[in-house]
Amino acid sequence: MPPIKKKIHINVDLGEAFGNFKCGPDEELIPLIDHANIACGFHGGDPMVMQETVRACKKHGIAAGAHPGLPDLQGFGRREMKMSPEELTALTRYQIGALQAFLDAEGLPLHHVKPHGILYGMMYKDKETCRAVYAAVPKGVPVFGLPGTLHEEVANEMGIPFFAELYGDVKYNNEGQLVIDRKKKPWTAEETKKHISSQVDDSSVTAVSGEELKIDTKDYPVTLCCHSDSPGAVQIVTAAREIVDGHNKRHA
Amino acid sequence: MPPIKKKIHINVDLGEAFGNFKCGPDEELIPLIDHANIACGFHGGDPMVMQETVRACKKHGIAAGAHPGLPDLQGFGRREMKMSPEELTALTRYQIGALQAFLDAEGLPLHHVKPHGILYGMMYKDKETCRAVYAAVPKGVPVFGLPGTLHEEVANEMGIPFFAELYGDVKYNNEGQLVIDRKKKPWTAEETKKHISSQVDDSSVTAVSGEELKIDTKDYPVTLCCHSDSPGAVQIVTAAREIVDGHNKRHA
Amino acid sequence: MPPIKKKIHINVDLGEAFGNFKCGPDEELIPLIDHANIACGFHGGDPMVMQETVRACKKHGIAAGAHPGLPDLQGFGRREMKMSPEELTALTRYQIGALQAFLDAEGLPLHHVKPHGILYGMMYKDKETCRAVYAAVPKGVPVFGLPGTLHEEVANEMGIPFFAELYGDVKYNNEGQLVIDRKKKPWTAEETKKHISSQVDDSSVTAVSGEELKIDTKDYPVTLCCHSDSPGAVQIVTAAREIVDGHNKRHA
Amino acid sequence: MPPIKKKIHINVDLGEAFGNFKCGPDEELIPLIDHANIACGFHGGDPMVMQETVRACKKHGIAAGAHPGLPDLQGFGRREMKMSPEELTALTRYQIGALQAFLDAEGLPLHHVKPHGILYGMMYKDKETCRAVYAAVPKGVPVFGLPGTLHEEVANEMGIPFFAELYGDVKYNNEGQLVIDRKKKPWTAEETKKHISSQVDDSSVTAVSGEELKIDTKDYPVTLCCHSDSPGAVQIVTAAREIVDGHNKRHA
Repeated sequence: MPPIKKKIHINVDLGEAFGNFKCGPDEELIPLIDHANIACGFHGGDPMVMQETVRACKKHGIAAGAHPGLPDLQGFGRREMKMSPEELTALTRYQIGALQAFLDAEGLPLHHVKPHGILYGMMYKDKETCRAVYAAVPKGVPVFGLPGTLHEEVANEMGIPFFAELYGDVKYNNEGQLVIDRKKKPWTAEETKKHISSQVDDSSVTAVSGEELKIDTKDYPVTLCCHSDSPGAVQIVTAAREIVDGHNKRHA
Repeated sequence: MPPIKKKIHINVDLGEAFGNFKCGPDEELIPLIDHANIACGFHGGDPMVMQETVRACKKHGIAAGAHPGLPDLQGFGRREMKMSPEELTALTRYQIGALQAFLDAEGLPLHHVKPHGILYGMMYKDKETCRAVYAAVPKGVPVFGLPGTLHEEVANEMGIPFFAELYGDVKYNNEGQLVIDRKKKPWTAEETKKHISSQVDDSSVTAVSGEELKIDTKDYPVTLCCHSDSPGAVQIVTAAREIVDGHNKRHA
Repeated sequence: MPPIKKKIHINVDLGEAFGNFKCGPDEELIPLIDHANIACGFHGGDPMVMQETVRACKKHGIAAGAHPGLPDLQGFGRREMKMSPEELTALTRYQIGALQAFLDAEGLPLHHVKPHGILYGMMYKDKETCRAVYAAVPKGVPVFGLPGTLHEEVANEMGIPFFAELYGDVKYNNEGQLVIDRKKKPWTAEETKKHISSQVDDSSVTAVSGEELKIDTKDYPVTLCCHSDSPGAVQIVTAAREIVDGHNKRHA
Repeated sequence: MPPIKKKIHINVDLGEAFGNFKCGPDEELIPLIDHANIACGFHGGDPMVMQETVRACKKHGIAAGAHPGLPDLQGFGRREMKMSPEELTALTRYQIGALQAFLDAEGLPLHHVKPHGILYGMMYKDKETCRAVYAAVPKGVPVFGLPGTLHEEVANEMGIPFFAELYGDVKYNNEGQLVIDRKKKPWTAEETKKHISSQVDDSSVTAVSGEELKIDTKDYPVTLCCHSDSPGAVQIVTAAREIVDGHNKRHA
């Protein structure tokens, strides 16, 4: 496959701390990224953390998006819950609105919406779930999603601008879906670099099954996701930044 | 004291249910009132309940306001908690934003902000607390508060439009502050009517100490608060509506 | 099928209130029942409610059991959540222990354990889930479960005393499993009586598919479950009491 | 003042993680201590974390105690909340019971009860609060508390065995009470050693006011508290262990 022929951005989940409980090394990651997915208090984050994270985004000129999750702090939004479409729309709307208030107070726009954890996973497995979550996205605001899955299909169907996401620190199954663990396992720098480079340079990736997967980002803007709660997050994002910067010099 | 010389509105706290847990008889109360204070998920309310309550306000043409509370569902926002000013601003901002998203989705404006329960009480006892909560109110949106207390003083100081609130089903102490109980106690219809009429017709009320209190609503718009979780809420609000309607015919 | 040939007891879920949020008419139900399933704070109940419910059981001589549920107050423990077996054991153990402390303080024994809501349902659909929950039951304490399902099979396999449960106010599917709704729908007194009588007098029931199901309670003690949050709970339990009392006079 | 003339133990708050949120370096601390205060799910801890912490205590032969806190995960039990005595007793009983179930499952006794954070502080400031919390302690189980405060007085009055606590990483005010911050501030090793040594060797400590305070541990068993969420917790506890071991060789 040919390389991706446009600028690639980097997005990271931020503001997932809760009260005294720290999550990722947000302060170190912010200068390295382009797009922040800000937790909205359900799987992580609280009003104080959101306030601080929005201010940090403003200070560093990072585009701030909402990162709504399932109402499950204990499970960090990574335990599947059966919810009705109405509930999914309502809880997504609630979280986006809460973040919007902090953005408004700082004069920042809502750049995008990216659902968190297993909610993101539930959406590419079930069209009704995907529609229910997207129904809460304010008009004109883009969503980040997995290309080639229901994320892309439903966003198009609903007229929602779509950013194609690549994953720097999560593996894919042979349907191009993510393999989400409750707690992230450590990767070596080499594994990470290979995983990212193959996506960026060849538009393909090795699935957990060993199969080679094509990832077609078409004409969508592309954003590469890394996680702040991955072990060695700063090293991973630093590596991703180098690869992406190299790519962007050649193609953007 | 002379009677209040302008139209009086009625406000009620609505949407305080949580999941399967019912709170007040919202459906019966909505047709009787003018202003709804909608719980925002911290002391009561959840995204589904907020969605339904906002829709009910729209259907009945009720002005919808935010009713942010302390993060204490178990205590229904009626247990005092020591929080920093930054926390108070952040939690109020979060809740108002969450409600705003449901209002936006239905095309309704945010009519007002009225803090809930003991947070409301903490604000008329401490200026820093009052400022911290009001700091989260979007520019130009009025607050409902107790006339003659820090609510009024701080709203004026911060340039926030102020509605003077009377209380139809809560007693006052001799400083004109409310006597807030964790669970509401039943009142007779007679007690309620006398309590409301004296405020509306004489701008005064008998405090729990027996003292007669003057309530000066000045030139502020006036709104009379009744609670949906009071025993006999429908009867209380029906009685309040009659008294207020009679008053409004004579003075509005 | 022949009638059940032994004394039948009645069990009801109690203490499902949370803070100011009421749930069922516990005070009216307690005198009508034999076995209380006391919520333990996860799907409903809180420490104060548990304290009061245990004292009410003591006062009325009702056998008190633990009613552990999923950690989902908003969903009232009726939204399926994917959890590991270790998590299921730990959360069940936690809740049983919490109740035990209130029983110890009143000198009452733990009579039984009955999992709540969708957790109960997850257990008869998946053996590993059933084992994980039962692993937290203290040695020698019986469980209440659906006869003819994994509840019975796993209890026997693990050497746990088993009470066969009939359901007075929940319908069965044609596999003898319950049809659990998030919110209970109202039944007429006639429907309820027929539903209960056929189980008690004929050891059978009409499934939602229309099929006639045999319910074999074998030699297990039998307890008939009614829900305190069903609309018309007091009438349902009163009807159940009459049918069961009539049966017990003839067979016990 | 003379040195303390008996063996001194070290206690640390453990198991304060919640779901994916880590708290202190429990694995590194456990081998260094004698008494664990295990969080019970209200200010920190969850059923899985409690299970693992109890097992770690068993493995390392550490005496396990309950560490109940206010129901405030976001504030880590360090925000004062106004609660009734009945609520305080009930929430303490609930948490102790929950831990007891994990101890029972591992065959460990409940060694002690030590209230957490601001609850501990509320108890030495108000006798009714202290009595309400102690009312939930199972008969015969000791409490850890501040000597010379209501902790000691009320324990004696209620016939509860008392361990006198010294604080290795928290400062005292001039009434011998603790100065509790929401988030711990870093101390140098020198500060820590001086703070601990003066208590152990001279039964006195410098208060934040500069005043020299006498700490009279009388005939009570003595246990020195360090916090797992202090910055540099492992260094602090290692230093404390050395000082205490030296002391114990000379005096125990």
